[in-house]
Amino acid sequence: MARILAIANQKGGVGKTTTAVNLAASLAVAEQRTLLIDADPQGNATSGCGLARADIGQTTYDVLIGECTLADAIVRHVHFRHLDLVPATPDLAGAELELVDDPDRGTRMRHALAPIRDRYDYILIDCPPSLGLITLNMLVAADALLIPLQCEYYALEGLSQLLSTVQRVQDVLNPSLDVDGVLLTMYDARLNLSRQVASDAREHFGARVFPTVIPRNIRLAEAPSFGKPIVVYDVASVGAQAYMAVARELLERDQQRSQQHDPHAQQHANQSPSSTHVGRATPEPRSPAQTPETSPRASLSNGA
Amino acid sequence: MARILAIANQKGGVGKTTTAVNLAASLAVAEQRTLLIDADPQGNATSGCGLARADIGQTTYDVLIGECTLADAIVRHVHFRHLDLVPATPDLAGAELELVDDPDRGTRMRHALAPIRDRYDYILIDCPPSLGLITLNMLVAADALLIPLQCEYYALEGLSQLLSTVQRVQDVLNPSLDVDGVLLTMYDARLNLSRQVASDAREHFGARVFPTVIPRNIRLAEAPSFGKPIVVYDVASVGAQAYMAVARELLERDQQRSQQHDPHAQQHANQSPSSTHVGRATPEPRSPAQTPETSPRASLSNGA
Repeated sequence: MARILAIANQKGGVGKTTTAVNLAASLAVAEQRTLLIDADPQGNATSGCGLARADIGQTTYDVLIGECTLADAIVRHVHFRHLDLVPATPDLAGAELELVDDPDRGTRMRHALAPIRDRYDYILIDCPPSLGLITLNMLVAADALLIPLQCEYYALEGLSQLLSTVQRVQDVLNPSLDVDGVLLTMYDARLNLSRQVASDAREHFGARVFPTVIPRNIRLAEAPSFGKPIVVYDVASVGAQAYMAVARELLERDQQRSQQHDPHAQQHANQSPSSTHVGRATPEPRSPAQTPETSPRASLSNGA
Repeated sequence: MARILAIANQKGGVGKTTTAVNLAASLAVAEQRTLLIDADPQGNATSGCGLARADIGQTTYDVLIGECTLADAIVRHVHFRHLDLVPATPDLAGAELELVDDPDRGTRMRHALAPIRDRYDYILIDCPPSLGLITLNMLVAADALLIPLQCEYYALEGLSQLLSTVQRVQDVLNPSLDVDGVLLTMYDARLNLSRQVASDAREHFGARVFPTVIPRNIRLAEAPSFGKPIVVYDVASVGAQAYMAVARELLERDQQRSQQHDPHAQQHANQSPSSTHVGRATPEPRSPAQTPETSPRASLSNGA
């Protein structure tokens, strides 16, 4: 049963697509059966995986408006045996208004994913840089949100809007939606600004911030124009190493989570020294009163 | 009575904000009473006009959700006596979903603009790079759409989605919405690609394409980080000259339009040789059967 992660931040240029493509590729390298869904009308995850316009049949747009099933839109074995892709084209932008009057406007992707969910270990969704109905569909379908945060001026600004959207989704359509992680991107250790953003993020989100940060890396920036994930384009680059490390951290978190669901394993997990810096330190269900620093609800008031 | 222009294209990075700020400034220089409304959560038109976060009171977000009137949110005399601004902050992103369940979700900006419309000659709206409810509100409020088109690969791709959104708005909420102009941006005369995009655009949109093109210009790119429109930052630059020329073309089009509304003046206008390359050659209401090359509806089938 796949864990579904929506990679979202309504700001553009924060590293959503870079993270979606390269984390998906890294998980596939680690032999996790992975599906990457491009949900951004810019289609950069699609082209970044090397899919040419001519190769594209049905897309996320067709799935959302009910023209085809999700299974119909899947392109299999993209660079890796374990990586599949649902592509997007600029058509997708139209879905925002086409869905407005639909009573199921928020739950279409969730229903579309249900029949194929057991075929994968991870489903990663690259969301568009806005908080409209496309992003809503992805948050309703997801188990958790992964937020890339660019280490630049005003990085945290606007996060309160994202988190209040999360709260709205939790309240109404998807109570179990979690903020699984915050990933710091375009980090430059030489800059005070990068260190300041990292420190602010860790203060707000605690252990939800991935220990690994994604550095500014020219190879990461070049890879999409060759249609290749970074582990294919240059596996030795610091960018590739960073995304492999994030994939490892994600797998560790999720292992811990399953252990926590098993009471015997949980006791062991709580004794583990690594539980202080990976994943959530508390078992499901979340308990905001006990761990205010890691709760998305608690962050709503001070997120920006 | 102001003419209201929504500057829209769901693609990011095509020059919407550059056009909004610099066309507004150029119109203000030409002594047109101009209001610039920042309707993009990125707030780049706001910062590009030099407004610091600390100076911002009420914003487009407050107007859309009904927290204040539009008049309350106006910042007056921005760089010029005749330029006013309604600022935006990242909060605005939240409006997409906050408005979804509102029966008036599409007409809030139109109602907000009505009381202040006669104070201005031009109201320019910088739309966000998506086709959600914020953009819908702006298209419903506007007399016309101005589409910046970047002279790059796939420039025309996605335009069919934009134009079908225009058609949807025309059909239901704003029958008089017009496509007033297509502005070619980031043009580089040395590149075949730029010339090809320009030629394709003129084929699709005919006389709606502004004769003046906006060149790639480093001074245009620099100006926003100084919080200045290009005519303030470097009036002698080719970028400043280009936007001043576009403002002139816009004024000429609108003069022609008013003449066409007066039958005596129209006869004169039809005899004018300049009517072949500026503005619409046909009087209101538009007649797609007679002038298919200049009709947005006719372009729907072949726009992308």
